[in-house]
Amino acid sequence: MTDDLPSPALLPSGLADLLPPEAAREAALVEGMLSVFATHGYERVKPPLLEFEDSLLAGSGAAVADQTFRLMDPDSHRMMGVRSDTTPQVARIAATRLADVPRPLRLSYSGQVLRMRGSQLAPERQIAQAGIELIGVDCPEADAEVALLGVAALAAVGVTDPSLDITLPRMAPVLLDAAGVDGDLRRRLARALDRKDAAAVRELAAIAGPPAIGLTALLTAAGPADRALAALREAELPADARAIADNAASIVAAIRARAPGLRITLDPVEFRGLQYHVGVAFTLYGPGATGELARGGRYRSGEEPATGMTMYPDAVRRAAPVAPTAPRVFIPLGADEAAAAGLRAQGFITVAALSAADTPQRLRCGHILRGTAAAPIEESV
Amino acid sequence: MTDDLPSPALLPSGLADLLPPEAAREAALVEGMLSVFATHGYERVKPPLLEFEDSLLAGSGAAVADQTFRLMDPDSHRMMGVRSDTTPQVARIAATRLADVPRPLRLSYSGQVLRMRGSQLAPERQIAQAGIELIGVDCPEADAEVALLGVAALAAVGVTDPSLDITLPRMAPVLLDAAGVDGDLRRRLARALDRKDAAAVRELAAIAGPPAIGLTALLTAAGPADRALAALREAELPADARAIADNAASIVAAIRARAPGLRITLDPVEFRGLQYHVGVAFTLYGPGATGELARGGRYRSGEEPATGMTMYPDAVRRAAPVAPTAPRVFIPLGADEAAAAGLRAQGFITVAALSAADTPQRLRCGHILRGTAAAPIEESV
Repeated sequence: MTDDLPSPALLPSGLADLLPPEAAREAALVEGMLSVFATHGYERVKPPLLEFEDSLLAGSGAAVADQTFRLMDPDSHRMMGVRSDTTPQVARIAATRLADVPRPLRLSYSGQVLRMRGSQLAPERQIAQAGIELIGVDCPEADAEVALLGVAALAAVGVTDPSLDITLPRMAPVLLDAAGVDGDLRRRLARALDRKDAAAVRELAAIAGPPAIGLTALLTAAGPADRALAALREAELPADARAIADNAASIVAAIRARAPGLRITLDPVEFRGLQYHVGVAFTLYGPGATGELARGGRYRSGEEPATGMTMYPDAVRRAAPVAPTAPRVFIPLGADEAAAAGLRAQGFITVAALSAADTPQRLRCGHILRGTAAAPIEESV
Repeated sequence: MTDDLPSPALLPSGLADLLPPEAAREAALVEGMLSVFATHGYERVKPPLLEFEDSLLAGSGAAVADQTFRLMDPDSHRMMGVRSDTTPQVARIAATRLADVPRPLRLSYSGQVLRMRGSQLAPERQIAQAGIELIGVDCPEADAEVALLGVAALAAVGVTDPSLDITLPRMAPVLLDAAGVDGDLRRRLARALDRKDAAAVRELAAIAGPPAIGLTALLTAAGPADRALAALREAELPADARAIADNAASIVAAIRARAPGLRITLDPVEFRGLQYHVGVAFTLYGPGATGELARGGRYRSGEEPATGMTMYPDAVRRAAPVAPTAPRVFIPLGADEAAAAGLRAQGFITVAALSAADTPQRLRCGHILRGTAAAPIEESV
C-alpha cells in the first residue's frame, strides 16, 4: 500500500506505524529467526512489557535506566518501568523462575522495547528485538555459538554475507587502569579512542606512559580479525589485557572452525555499545550499507556468566530481500466457498466480494475465481 | 520447564512471564491465526505501543480511556497513552495513512495491550491481541465474514467446535428509548437486564409500559439462535428495534449458509462488552469451560462503518491442544556440524555441548548424535 514512513503530524517522534506489506514482512522475519534459535535448543520466554523498576533496572538493567519510561502502578503504588531492553528481564527469569533448570540455559525472546529518547542517528523510540541468551557458561565456544546463530538467523531470512564486528569493551579500560591513568587525562583518552583520533591517542598515551602507549598500535590494528589478532599477539600487554586478547583469539578460532568464510573484523580498543558487556561484544552488519542488524556479546546475567545476541528486526527487514507475495484472487458474490478454500490451500489469497460494489479492481485482485481455478484478470475480461 | 503462573513477589499484579514451552506455543498460535487472516486478504499493520493520547483516545478509543496508562513525552511535552486496545489505532491508520485505499479495507494486527487495572474475573493487565478489522462496509455478509474468520482461526490452531455468541448491544437501549424510560427506572432496568434477573425485569418493565414490556420475553428468549430469532420475529418491536432484529437474522443466515454446523447463540438484550459496538457483538467460546476466546462485532471506525474480531491468544493457548515438541538431540563436543544440520532439517532440535560438563541429561536431551543419526539415549548407554 504505502511504505513505513513515520507520520510526524500524528505520532510522537520515533514512533511509527508499520503498514502493509512491511508489518507482515517483519513478523515473518522475526518468526523465521526465532525458528533458527528454536532448532538449536533455545526456548522462548515472554516477559511482560512492564515490571517494577527495582527489578527491571537491577543488574545489567542499570545501563538503560535513563532511557526507561516510568509509570505508577495504581494497584501497588510502586513505580514500574516499561522495558527498554529485554536482556535484563531474561536474566531475572533465569535467576528466579528458571533457577533450578540445569545450565547452560538457552533462552530466546521477541518483542518490543520503548526508549524515552531517540538520538539523531537512531531516532526510533520503539524498537523490535528478537534474541537469544546463553546463560551459565563462560567459554569461547559459547560466544562462538551465539555469534554464529546470529549469522544463521540472518541467512534464514535471506541476508547472506554479513560481517561480524568484534570489539573488546574491557581492553581500553584495563590498559588505562594498568597505566594508572585517571581523572582528566583518562576522560580525554577515552574520548580520543571513541573518536578514533589516532594522533590524539598517541599524544595522550605518551603522557600516560606504558602500557597505555600500546593503545595507539591497537587502535590502528582495527580491521580484519587476523591482522588485529596479530597486532594483539605482538603487543606488550599486562596479564589481564593479555587474557582478554587470548579469549578473543579463541573465540575467533571457534567461529572460523565452523564458518571459515565469515568476514570478521576486530577492533580491540573500541568500547561503545551496550554498557553491560564484559568480554567480547558483537555487531552484525549486512552487506552494503544496511547498518547494524544485531548486537550481542558477553555479560553478567545476575550472578551468572552469559552471552547473547539481539537481532533488530527493523534493520533486518530493510536488509532482507522482499519475497514475492501471494496473488490475490477475487471471489464473486455467492461463489463456491469450497473452491475458494481450494485456492487458499494452493497458496492464493482469496478476497470475497461482499456486495455488488466490490470489483476485482477495488479489492486489488489480479485474479478471479473461475470454476475452481484462479484466472488472471487480463484473460478473463 | 514450568508453567506460566504469575510471580507475585516479582511482578506487578496482572503481569506475568510466559515460560517455555508456553511462550513458543503462544507465538505459534498467533502466527497460525494471522496466517488464516492473511489468506483471506487481511493485510497486517503494526501500530506503535504509544501514541499521543488525543489520537489514541479519539472515537472508539474513548471507551477505554480510563484503562489507559499515560506518559509524558519528554520530546514534545505532550501526554501519550500506552494502547489498551488495538482497534482504535487501526481506525486511525485506516482514516489517515490508508484513506486512499479503496474500501472495503481488510486489516489484521497482533500485539500486546496494557490496562491500568485488572478485575477480579480478568486480573491480567497485559493482554495479547490478534485480530482483524473490515472497514468501510456495512452489510450482513461483512459481519458473517469476520465471525467465520474467527472460527477458522481457532480451527487452524486446533480449537474445533467453538460456539458463537451474538448479542445486540443496541436493542435494550433502543427499547428503553422507545418506551421513554429514563432516570432511576432506566438504571434499575439496565441493572436487572445485566444480572439477567427476569423477575425484576418483568416488574420494572410493567412500570415502564410498552414497548419495554417486550424486554422480558427477549430476556428469556436468549439461547440457541433459532429460538431467539423466533422470539424476535414474534415480538412487537418499534421500527428501529425491528431493524436490529432483522439485521441479526440476516447475519445468522449468512453465517449458517457457510457454516451450517456452527453452534450459534443469541442474547437479544445483553449489552455488556466493548462499549463501542453499535450493531451485533460477537463472542467466541471454545468447547468446555475455556472462557472467551475472541470478541468482536460492528463499530464505527472513525467516520466509516466497520466490523472486526479480536482473538485472545492467552485464552486460545489454554483451549488449544498441545502439539508434541520436537525431540532434543545432544551434539557432543567436536561433532560434525553438517550432521547436526541434517538432524535440524529433519525436524530435530540440536543442543550442542560447549564443554565436558555438558551431558545429555543436563541439556535435557532424549537423543544423542551417533554418526549422522539421532539415537535415543536409552539405546545408546
